[in-house]
Amino acid sequence: MCVPETFDALRTSRREFLKLAAGTALGTAMAGTALLGPQEAEARAISVNKVQDLTHVLNPGFPSFNPKFFPKFERKVFVTIKKDGFYGNVLTYWEHSGTHMDAPHHFAEGAWMVHQIPAGRLIGPAAVIHIHERAASNPNAQVTPNDIRAWERRNGRLPNGAIVLMHSGWESRVNDVQAYRNPDAKGVMHFPGFHPEAAQMLVKERNITGIGVDTLSLDYGASADFKTHVTVLGANKWGLENVANLATIPPKGATLFVGAPRVQDGSGGPTRVIAVW
Amino acid sequence: MCVPETFDALRTSRREFLKLAAGTALGTAMAGTALLGPQEAEARAISVNKVQDLTHVLNPGFPSFNPKFFPKFERKVFVTIKKDGFYGNVLTYWEHSGTHMDAPHHFAEGAWMVHQIPAGRLIGPAAVIHIHERAASNPNAQVTPNDIRAWERRNGRLPNGAIVLMHSGWESRVNDVQAYRNPDAKGVMHFPGFHPEAAQMLVKERNITGIGVDTLSLDYGASADFKTHVTVLGANKWGLENVANLATIPPKGATLFVGAPRVQDGSGGPTRVIAVW
Repeated sequence: MCVPETFDALRTSRREFLKLAAGTALGTAMAGTALLGPQEAEARAISVNKVQDLTHVLNPGFPSFNPKFFPKFERKVFVTIKKDGFYGNVLTYWEHSGTHMDAPHHFAEGAWMVHQIPAGRLIGPAAVIHIHERAASNPNAQVTPNDIRAWERRNGRLPNGAIVLMHSGWESRVNDVQAYRNPDAKGVMHFPGFHPEAAQMLVKERNITGIGVDTLSLDYGASADFKTHVTVLGANKWGLENVANLATIPPKGATLFVGAPRVQDGSGGPTRVIAVW
Repeated sequence: MCVPETFDALRTSRREFLKLAAGTALGTAMAGTALLGPQEAEARAISVNKVQDLTHVLNPGFPSFNPKFFPKFERKVFVTIKKDGFYGNVLTYWEHSGTHMDAPHHFAEGAWMVHQIPAGRLIGPAAVIHIHERAASNPNAQVTPNDIRAWERRNGRLPNGAIVLMHSGWESRVNDVQAYRNPDAKGVMHFPGFHPEAAQMLVKERNITGIGVDTLSLDYGASADFKTHVTVLGANKWGLENVANLATIPPKGATLFVGAPRVQDGSGGPTRVIAVW
């Protein structure tokens, strides 16, 4: 048992957010809403018995949401130990490659760019919602409010500051770009995501830090309006896409560390995601 | 007080490392050495009362080790909310930009590329060695074995799996490229780093995970042979450069999360570093 302690750092985040939001369009839009900051997170200490990497290895072959539109991930060897005494590369890529973060600003003017997300908002309790059985027979499966309520019946209410993760089992297709994108004859993709109503519930009725999926998009593949993106990022919460290994961490009880880059004015970017429990 | 628990994940890392090293030049070179894996890390739980970002914001103006040789960090806006409905950039950069990791392979053939570093080796207890008073009057100041011993007299022996960090106060110059690089008339830079003898002590006589500095290089600026790099990375330990805010975390007792990217065959890269305690 651990002595409960106050989460000072997250109180700071709340103040920083209000200060930031006050000067922006988002601040104006949100001033009257009940946006709950994680300063109310329950006191805690993190056990570290197990560590699991939730990050795919990023290379030029990693599936892209739209390979015709977005530049391909590129790594050029710039120096070598043999020739130069040390080894290193120059990288060129679209920010939304591999296991990556969608910063709130990706879909919401005035919301946080990646460099503005306080460190305290990059740590949180993971809640894994398993829809892999449904997704095995229906590639358009989505996480619904009912799935969230079913999780809560088993595990208790979503903890304050939760990072809510969809496990659809889609990872088994990640080495086959065609199967992972799963487009139909018209080019419309079919893979699981969060239903906009679940997104709405999470940002209005719960106090989350972000959401994550083991597919290419927070919205399911066939979405025409990206409403889950708009809802989650518009509430100044972030998203994670192409998250790995979600079958291997407990549905409740792990803590996530989200190593998002700190690029000025970044819309997100390849992120190291690590679970400990 | 927290119940002590075993660090299973780090035992795994040790096994993974041995498996990796066995098939490489490094494995051959190291087979006979007493390289201690962090499986011996003391049992622990991590308190999270405070969170501190140790990451500088990365932009094209951030100081570079050699701006004439390495490509400049570049961010090009690729889509905008106004025009495209969402915002994002394409980035191009040399891996060793901003607050970043040097993966072991950066200077050591056969040692870990950044994607091979197990998640358990990206978490560890921080030990901050302050040399800022000496560095204020001597830009060639280095962390020596005596500094490590002085830290241990005050704080006890370096913990297993320690991440040993130099705080030289150099961060106060980070917004002035010339002052941060501090070249003399011949172009030789003068800023603090780890002395090779300290590096040798850390990899031979202690059980560390990595080291970090608040300057452009693990070696001090005037180094001609990068001997600290070769010693630390050659022992399959990583380094962190341009670490921020080291004056604000305790010398002992914080845990670091090192959000290094997972680029295949990467030599390191911009990294989100977060301290909790």
